[in-house]
Amino acid sequence: MKLFVLLIFLIISILNKNVNSEQLYTRYRSPYPYYSQKNLGKKSVKDDPSPPPYKEYWYMQTLDHFNFQTKGQFAQRYLISDTYWNKPSPSSKVCSGPIIFYTGNEGDIVWFYENSQFITNVLAKEMGALLFFAEHRYYGETLPFGNESLTPENTGYLTSEQALADYAELIPSVLADLGAEHCPVISVGGSYGGMLTAWFRMKYPNIVDAGLAASAPILMFYKTGASQEGFNQIATDDFKQTSEEGTCASRIRNAFNSIMEISQQTGGLQQLTNTFSLCDSLNQVGDLVNWIESGLTYMAMADYPYPAGFLEPMPGYPINVSCEAMATTTDDIQGLLKVLNVYYNYTGTTQCYNTSVFTTSALGSDAWDVQACNEMIMPISSNGVQDMFPAAPFNLQQLTSYCQQTWGITPGVNWITTYYGGSNFTTSNLIFSNGVLDPWRAGGVLKDYGDSVIHIIIDGGAHHLDLRMPNEADPDSVIQARITETKLLQMWANEASLKKQRK
Amino acid sequence: MKLFVLLIFLIISILNKNVNSEQLYTRYRSPYPYYSQKNLGKKSVKDDPSPPPYKEYWYMQTLDHFNFQTKGQFAQRYLISDTYWNKPSPSSKVCSGPIIFYTGNEGDIVWFYENSQFITNVLAKEMGALLFFAEHRYYGETLPFGNESLTPENTGYLTSEQALADYAELIPSVLADLGAEHCPVISVGGSYGGMLTAWFRMKYPNIVDAGLAASAPILMFYKTGASQEGFNQIATDDFKQTSEEGTCASRIRNAFNSIMEISQQTGGLQQLTNTFSLCDSLNQVGDLVNWIESGLTYMAMADYPYPAGFLEPMPGYPINVSCEAMATTTDDIQGLLKVLNVYYNYTGTTQCYNTSVFTTSALGSDAWDVQACNEMIMPISSNGVQDMFPAAPFNLQQLTSYCQQTWGITPGVNWITTYYGGSNFTTSNLIFSNGVLDPWRAGGVLKDYGDSVIHIIIDGGAHHLDLRMPNEADPDSVIQARITETKLLQMWANEASLKKQRK
Repeated sequence: MKLFVLLIFLIISILNKNVNSEQLYTRYRSPYPYYSQKNLGKKSVKDDPSPPPYKEYWYMQTLDHFNFQTKGQFAQRYLISDTYWNKPSPSSKVCSGPIIFYTGNEGDIVWFYENSQFITNVLAKEMGALLFFAEHRYYGETLPFGNESLTPENTGYLTSEQALADYAELIPSVLADLGAEHCPVISVGGSYGGMLTAWFRMKYPNIVDAGLAASAPILMFYKTGASQEGFNQIATDDFKQTSEEGTCASRIRNAFNSIMEISQQTGGLQQLTNTFSLCDSLNQVGDLVNWIESGLTYMAMADYPYPAGFLEPMPGYPINVSCEAMATTTDDIQGLLKVLNVYYNYTGTTQCYNTSVFTTSALGSDAWDVQACNEMIMPISSNGVQDMFPAAPFNLQQLTSYCQQTWGITPGVNWITTYYGGSNFTTSNLIFSNGVLDPWRAGGVLKDYGDSVIHIIIDGGAHHLDLRMPNEADPDSVIQARITETKLLQMWANEASLKKQRK
Repeated sequence: MKLFVLLIFLIISILNKNVNSEQLYTRYRSPYPYYSQKNLGKKSVKDDPSPPPYKEYWYMQTLDHFNFQTKGQFAQRYLISDTYWNKPSPSSKVCSGPIIFYTGNEGDIVWFYENSQFITNVLAKEMGALLFFAEHRYYGETLPFGNESLTPENTGYLTSEQALADYAELIPSVLADLGAEHCPVISVGGSYGGMLTAWFRMKYPNIVDAGLAASAPILMFYKTGASQEGFNQIATDDFKQTSEEGTCASRIRNAFNSIMEISQQTGGLQQLTNTFSLCDSLNQVGDLVNWIESGLTYMAMADYPYPAGFLEPMPGYPINVSCEAMATTTDDIQGLLKVLNVYYNYTGTTQCYNTSVFTTSALGSDAWDVQACNEMIMPISSNGVQDMFPAAPFNLQQLTSYCQQTWGITPGVNWITTYYGGSNFTTSNLIFSNGVLDPWRAGGVLKDYGDSVIHIIIDGGAHHLDLRMPNEADPDSVIQARITETKLLQMWANEASLKKQRK
């Protein structure tokens, strides 16, 4: 978040305040806006049942799995629910109650527990499984250095490799305490959590027997063959397809063009401030563009078929609703405002908009900022031609400057594909599900790899819709996806339980 | 090496110099005695052809792959030989000249290049392959901090995980320079190098397409099901089987018993000093036991069918020769001396024996000492019943004290099996070869895992005999092993070359 602000500042400085030449760069987007995760305990969908009760535990985790000179441990939080668990008897040789392990991602683990009800309420019941949700280091309450966790010198231990090693150390220890060493372990995760599930199965098949990686953009990196512009194209397509003519997307593009023009006029920034009802006067058009883009792409990510409050409270298929609202006016900027209103103000309680909502520093969003600087280098960009956004190339040089100045880190541009593999990975017993509406599908695995790496495409599905509570409004595609997922995971769990049976 | 000395010292201190109660612990053995590696450029077998010429290169390697706050690089050495390489033309879509990559282990890479002639002279020629031998960090001339590499605070980057990450980063870079990105990569290694090859294939199937792990004791850890006493039992069996009655092994055991008895008598240590022609007076019997055990087990490791100087110059089947020599005397201790003479003094030039030959500090042996303290925790022990050695349990507490005091490291006892898997690993396209005579077979993979993880047992073979130059004295088992290895590696290389062909 800070990145974009700094970039704009740098560019403006370099260009000697020649605003006409101001160039936009795609800001480095976190998969989730951090502030949404504050809604702990609030139901995302009003009528959804609560997830089963859980108990909170803490494990003394190794701070550094890869350097034996580094001392120290930290308390890692994890949640356990045995409500549906078919717990193995001490004498049973075969375990029929598998472990469903959620590879916690960039947020409070309770938030993920409360927003994965297909897993917690349906799959766990179906499989007689133990629910085991582990919190990712540096997020939620799992802060290795407390409030000092994000001073730059303390951020060196915040990587996906350390997080997976945490899970690999944690699971056998917890299972031993439960007398469940011989139980199959199924890993599940969505978004970055889905990437972790995929990588966990690839790197630790000794710990985890199968996995469901929902909306996991593991190919959203350099040299994987994935399109850098796919993310913004899919978001654009979501708006385009609300009408046969694709009017909604083209009018949003027109609105962006108008905004850029107005911003270059004398008094233009103040005019935009007024038009968009911003709380604070705009200093640079980039802040507005960033805020609009965020609203549009988060709406695409959360384009669920029923009213939900996963990121923000929105109606069912919010993009359709927003494009219908746009159609009630002929002015493109006013139309864009109506679109944004669905994401930022569906409850109608907002008096003015705060464009710095994403740039305000917070422990969780800053932790993602560290990861986006060290190894999660996703070169997302827009070209303004196949997508509706102002053209903004991904600029590695700018990212590098930002990361060095902010965190003292030089991005390891190729490290993820070196360590985990790009499109040439090898694994088994793993499902990759992706929703057609989800911009992150651009980095998803969209084909099978052999007999037991299965891809599922969910028509009409947004970001990991399949992990959410089944709903009457669900399209058939996600109903089928969940059936397939359950069948495959159950089959792999059965196979694993036989292999792991006690002697 | 230092370990044993310290342990004995500690125990003696604790027991208030009550030598009668002195207990022996198995010293922590390096797979190779370091001093052997000084024989660079000297042929291990007189009549062997030289390996093909190579060029030496240096790569600026990342010091810390797992922490982006750690800065720094170091020069990593690697050797390239294109003598036999069927180099792909720039226009060729399919690469028919694979890369044979040697995962350098605990020593000078030139030493491994000079002692793997099945690979360098036979397999490379057969496959039209490029030879690519990379030196392991902290060994040979690849010293991240120069002469300061082994000050405790600098040893934190000495792990197998960092070494594999080095190789994963190095290979794509070198192949890109050679225009060989689409060439299959076959990994090869022996002993710890074999473990690295196995783990490399498991963890980086995106980098390496197949592997030959020769005499790789990847199960020589806790919780793998491997016997802790297997190493010493196999060494014992090697001596036992030289006669139907097993006399040689039982007489060695008797000799050990006599040594222990004599050591407890007044003047006993001086008597042993004289009997064994030691250069320096013995301070503790443990030094002598350690030196004898080392000679016996290294002889078992290097029990090759023809005269060779891999570790020390010895005749063909040195154990047979030594047991025949023992049979010429009825005194067990004198017989043991004749046995040891074959390992320590076959050239007849030694005037007195130096029991501290293994405990003298040296850069290479100290580097292994670090690894033996951080993650390579192999709980090898002897029981004095199934083996011919004085009973010596593996004592983790003592190891921990030693490692903490010497290197400031607490052993990560379960880390290797957590990270790489124990007996429940998953991989493909990998050969595990083990020699029946080799004590390290006790930690080897002795069964197939699926269709393409193939084990080979070499009757009459010692430590990675298959990697050595074919010799007229070779048993049929190793001839067959090399045929199978060539066939499988060629098949996997062909499959990979089709998969990797240029678009």
